[in-house]
Amino acid sequence: MKINIIGTGNVASHLMKAFDGKAKTVQINSHTLEGLDPSADVTIISVTDRAIRDVASRLPEMKGIVAHTSGSVGMDALEGEAGINNYGVFYPLQTFSKNVSLQYDKIPFFIEGESDITTTKLLNLASLISDTVNVADSSKRKAIHVASVFACNFANFLWNCADTVLKENQLPFEILRPLLIETIRKTEEISPFDAQTGPARRNDTGVIESHLQMLSNRQELATIYELLSSSIRSHYHN
Amino acid sequence: MKINIIGTGNVASHLMKAFDGKAKTVQINSHTLEGLDPSADVTIISVTDRAIRDVASRLPEMKGIVAHTSGSVGMDALEGEAGINNYGVFYPLQTFSKNVSLQYDKIPFFIEGESDITTTKLLNLASLISDTVNVADSSKRKAIHVASVFACNFANFLWNCADTVLKENQLPFEILRPLLIETIRKTEEISPFDAQTGPARRNDTGVIESHLQMLSNRQELATIYELLSSSIRSHYHN
Repeated sequence: MKINIIGTGNVASHLMKAFDGKAKTVQINSHTLEGLDPSADVTIISVTDRAIRDVASRLPEMKGIVAHTSGSVGMDALEGEAGINNYGVFYPLQTFSKNVSLQYDKIPFFIEGESDITTTKLLNLASLISDTVNVADSSKRKAIHVASVFACNFANFLWNCADTVLKENQLPFEILRPLLIETIRKTEEISPFDAQTGPARRNDTGVIESHLQMLSNRQELATIYELLSSSIRSHYHN
Repeated sequence: MKINIIGTGNVASHLMKAFDGKAKTVQINSHTLEGLDPSADVTIISVTDRAIRDVASRLPEMKGIVAHTSGSVGMDALEGEAGINNYGVFYPLQTFSKNVSLQYDKIPFFIEGESDITTTKLLNLASLISDTVNVADSSKRKAIHVASVFACNFANFLWNCADTVLKENQLPFEILRPLLIETIRKTEEISPFDAQTGPARRNDTGVIESHLQMLSNRQELATIYELLSSSIRSHYHN
């Protein structure tokens, strides 16, 4: 199995590591495409969403499958390009950071192919590195991506907000860790809807007011606090 | 050691369990105060924030320490009551749900006392059940509470939002679990500020627009998506 991985960002670099010892991989600069093997079994385009079509349009005639790794770009972004015969999507649902190592076999992959044969080949490819491999069309994959933005990117940003409040009071982020771990663990037992706690869940307007007052010198945090509190209250107290 | 625990909510009930076998505890209904022992070493008032003063005002002459468990109510809520001599705060930083079991020794406690003797006694009491016991005055404790609302209550609500998006697409919340676990784990290696990923972090307006379009039939989710994305963008791209 020979794979071109086009891209030098976090996802491309982690895919290189994930396939290490499991397939013959070459990492390719998306600007020059130098070293690209047109006879590779699979070519993975792992670049920013808006660069995918451009890279696809510059490919020579490719013998194998060409797939991108984006959660939000449809499979059709690879359709109709002169160099591309078989194409699909190879989407890993994970947060990738530079210099942060990962257990690749725990990453769910969502696969789509232009034909059943392509889908099967991409599923097999993902199975080389992951225990959880699924088929998902472009619309399902987009929903998964939106959900992951809420669940991961936005949740992380709220931890950043919490860190800001703590830092102003000379407190380390680490004091929140048992709470964070329990907050996640709880959703294994009950749904996030049932797991909701806090002043807004209890409709405790006194606490909400006093928190907003504390945040009055931090308008951005106050705005987020207010919107999420009112959203929670309307979910549970209407 | 004899303890009155006043309240029948989640925190009170979990404190009863936590002290099981470590102190002689009685759980007291906050309305009747029936069974309250005025000679107990400590009386813990674990009721909603706005009920604390009312309960405090109805106590008979208490021999021991009276403490509340609130993150947001100042210690002074217990000051000047006829029945109260020594008082303080006994604040566990955790999310408590009915029927969800907890590892009590991992819960950080934040303690405040009206005198050094009271503080020491409450620290010792917390040490009976927890490995992490700290002193924090009312202003620090309030900051911790605000931070925990962002980090826990609001993050959980975002998981509920993610669950809503997934459910509409017949996808289970469980597919997000490896991502959630990694998102938290990453903050052990790098700060939440450095751990931020996603379309807003990359200033990828194309993806943000396409996500907002997908959420156009869910105005509430779209509003949250828009505010948090613009907040992230202004943090990283100004």
